Amino acid sequence: MAKGITKRSVDYSRWYTDVIAAAQLADHSPVKGCMVIRPTGYAIWEQMQTALDKLFKETGHVNAYFPCFIPEHFMKKEAEHVKGFAPECAVVTHGGGKKLEEPLFIRPTSETIIWAMYKDWIQSYRDLPLLINQWANVVRWEMRTRLFLRTTEFLWQEGHTAHATYEEAEAETKQMLEVYRTFAEEYMAVPVITGKKTEREKFAGALHTYCIEAMMQDAKALQAGTSHNLGQNFAKAFDVTFQNEAGELESVWATSWGVSTRLIGALIMTHSDDNGLVLPPKMAAVPVVIVPIWKSDEEMDAVLKRLDVLTRNWKDKFNFKIDDRNNLRPGRKFNEWEKKGIPIRLEVGPRDLETNEIVLVRRDTCEKTRVSQDNLTERIISTLESMQVDMFKKALAFRRSNTHKVDDYDEFKERIDAAGGFYLVHWNGQTASEEKLQEETKATIRCIPFDAPEETGKCLITGQPSTRRVIVARAY
Amino acid sequence: MAKGITKRSVDYSRWYTDVIAAAQLADHSPVKGCMVIRPTGYAIWEQMQTALDKLFKETGHVNAYFPCFIPEHFMKKEAEHVKGFAPECAVVTHGGGKKLEEPLFIRPTSETIIWAMYKDWIQSYRDLPLLINQWANVVRWEMRTRLFLRTTEFLWQEGHTAHATYEEAEAETKQMLEVYRTFAEEYMAVPVITGKKTEREKFAGALHTYCIEAMMQDAKALQAGTSHNLGQNFAKAFDVTFQNEAGELESVWATSWGVSTRLIGALIMTHSDDNGLVLPPKMAAVPVVIVPIWKSDEEMDAVLKRLDVLTRNWKDKFNFKIDDRNNLRPGRKFNEWEKKGIPIRLEVGPRDLETNEIVLVRRDTCEKTRVSQDNLTERIISTLESMQVDMFKKALAFRRSNTHKVDDYDEFKERIDAAGGFYLVHWNGQTASEEKLQEETKATIRCIPFDAPEETGKCLITGQPSTRRVIVARAY
Repeated sequence: MAKGITKRSVDYSRWYTDVIAAAQLADHSPVKGCMVIRPTGYAIWEQMQTALDKLFKETGHVNAYFPCFIPEHFMKKEAEHVKGFAPECAVVTHGGGKKLEEPLFIRPTSETIIWAMYKDWIQSYRDLPLLINQWANVVRWEMRTRLFLRTTEFLWQEGHTAHATYEEAEAETKQMLEVYRTFAEEYMAVPVITGKKTEREKFAGALHTYCIEAMMQDAKALQAGTSHNLGQNFAKAFDVTFQNEAGELESVWATSWGVSTRLIGALIMTHSDDNGLVLPPKMAAVPVVIVPIWKSDEEMDAVLKRLDVLTRNWKDKFNFKIDDRNNLRPGRKFNEWEKKGIPIRLEVGPRDLETNEIVLVRRDTCEKTRVSQDNLTERIISTLESMQVDMFKKALAFRRSNTHKVDDYDEFKERIDAAGGFYLVHWNGQTASEEKLQEETKATIRCIPFDAPEETGKCLITGQPSTRRVIVARAY
Repeated sequence: MAKGITKRSVDYSRWYTDVIAAAQLADHSPVKGCMVIRPTGYAIWEQMQTALDKLFKETGHVNAYFPCFIPEHFMKKEAEHVKGFAPECAVVTHGGGKKLEEPLFIRPTSETIIWAMYKDWIQSYRDLPLLINQWANVVRWEMRTRLFLRTTEFLWQEGHTAHATYEEAEAETKQMLEVYRTFAEEYMAVPVITGKKTEREKFAGALHTYCIEAMMQDAKALQAGTSHNLGQNFAKAFDVTFQNEAGELESVWATSWGVSTRLIGALIMTHSDDNGLVLPPKMAAVPVVIVPIWKSDEEMDAVLKRLDVLTRNWKDKFNFKIDDRNNLRPGRKFNEWEKKGIPIRLEVGPRDLETNEIVLVRRDTCEKTRVSQDNLTERIISTLESMQVDMFKKALAFRRSNTHKVDDYDEFKERIDAAGGFYLVHWNGQTASEEKLQEETKATIRCIPFDAPEETGKCLITGQPSTRRVIVARAY
């Protein structure tokens, strides 16, 4: 086990904090509830941004930037929205040495300021759809914070689209959820369940909210992304209408969708182990590190010279780093890269030059293999591809083995206390029973999964009739 | 002339606003002094970010993210810094529904919060240099604002580095100024003068500040980027020391450097014309647009089919867009792309299919040429390359013809009133005469240029002895 990292089996929560510290991903800041994202952590966010931004642009979206300030009276225009967000806002009351006439909220989310602008930009059906995304910081005053998972300030993207019909807005809402699913599963190697949030859990101001839910290694749930069909609520609040093809004025239909630096928390808690961070290859800015080993200057020259030849054609294929620092022993270097989660570590010393081999260590399995220096490039590429797939499969297998159908409330309480997990349970669709469930078990309905078949049963909490199962879990 | 754009010769300031509106680059927001960067404008910022980020990484820098909040007592730790920045800060006094124990300033720049963290990260000479950059929004309360040039909130990057010696910090300060010069000249095609700011104009808290200064088409100056040698001021304020190789404790040496969305203003005012925005190829996300022309469905099919063949190998070489909207006439499309500054517009109709030609229009010169469809790809690439160079040369020639040596104060006043311009004048090095100059002429010392030779003369304002010329201009 790595020095300084608590074992998962001993204290999962401390393990999480230790992994972050050991990999230097983030720090608490002197500002209460706010984190500093350190370079190693920020590099992961950059990988996420690049991949997501590409997916957004491929689906026709463009980026823009709106002010971080929201005038108080804007927040109040959408009744549900202000109820949901105003209590957790940071408020600017002074600017330029003077008290402001109207306080400004720092955006907790940007629907209101964006729809105030859309009023000027949308007149006709020809202006629709409007498909805009923003990369930004947002602030939500949190009492209990946790690095990446819940911080007062965090980074995110928020898509805000405008459409001519409900159907188009609904298709967009579902499309973006699918983009999130693709990103989570194919890039982060994090399997997710897609589904609909209950009325109680939906976004403040939405008709309905879709989500992706992931399972962490302690078998707790983490909401990894949401996509909202906002109906005409914000258009009506900000009086945004358009002339349709028939020449009539109609209110515009809206969606919004977002993922945040919380995804870094999801990534850590899905894959990492007792030795530290484990990154899937697609999330590693540098997926390959080489640690050369030498005792004398001649050996150093020989090893570095061979590496020069071996790595000649790597640049266009994958990023790599040669760790040739000479004030650190190889063991220390191995340890450092292990803690930082670099997918593949190569070790090469004078003896390997003779045998024409190299040691290849996979971070996910910690498997150490001697491989030939011939065809090394192909070997690395295929290993990276296998890791990406294997890590997803492993996480999926874990989720499956921790997902259970339960029909008895007492059995449910016992099992969730003993081992966490996702539970497919019947529910009568009422907010009252949902609240009772949470009060009594600290578990919540994570979503009504898209793929849940119709099935008659009895509500776990009330015994009343139910037509399909929902997913219940304790969550971050 | 384009509809809706005031001519430069009639009203330069209105022309600037009109160009921005016509290209849909930005809008004023309902929040006083804050702008909305619209998708067309934000695409330029993305081009800038991509190019700069690459240059930063090539010089060894990594990105990170620090909180947007700065506790009031942090600001006060560096005496000059608080004097310079506190009066223009936005202040958060309430969070989560409660009054805060200590007000939080929204970052106007991040030296203080970053050096508070560096205290934890730096112990030994082995931790140095620390080369970190941050992409972020910042807030400075401005009374008179102007889109891109001066807004209450703006986007920028801020580099913050830590070094073991003054010499290293100084080398970094100069290196980053050189990165900015390269970016301005080779990417934005904006010629700049590099030099040192006077004591009066330097950054609040710096030993000295270097800058790049550009000339706009009204012959006024615009400060486009700054790089500061902060000495040990922030290290001392935040008690950041390191153990040197000899085992002694020393204060760390610091630099900071930044450019912002102001660069978009510089880009607009350097190259655009009375028809709208003109983008240098490297700043255009899509440098080539094709407007197909047809009257019948058969013609449309034939033209689009040919375009399919012609553009087959373009994807990997440059971005392009085929404007096949059929609810707009070609003339409207030409006008739209002209206003948006797309470097090359291609027009192709049924007649061109017969003659195997295509119309190519260069946005910078408005030159319209019929070119062969054979070797069209190469022709486009070489035209883009020429435009990039020609636009720089044109801007440089303009600056040269508007830069003058003057030794008589009255002549200076007359000439700057009549035609703006940069003036190489002698100055006695005293803040008092610098202030007098500004009071009497509204002009300021832009910089002490690096390339100004030693030369004895008499101060323009006081007649006292001077050893070299400085650059004086009215500025944005």
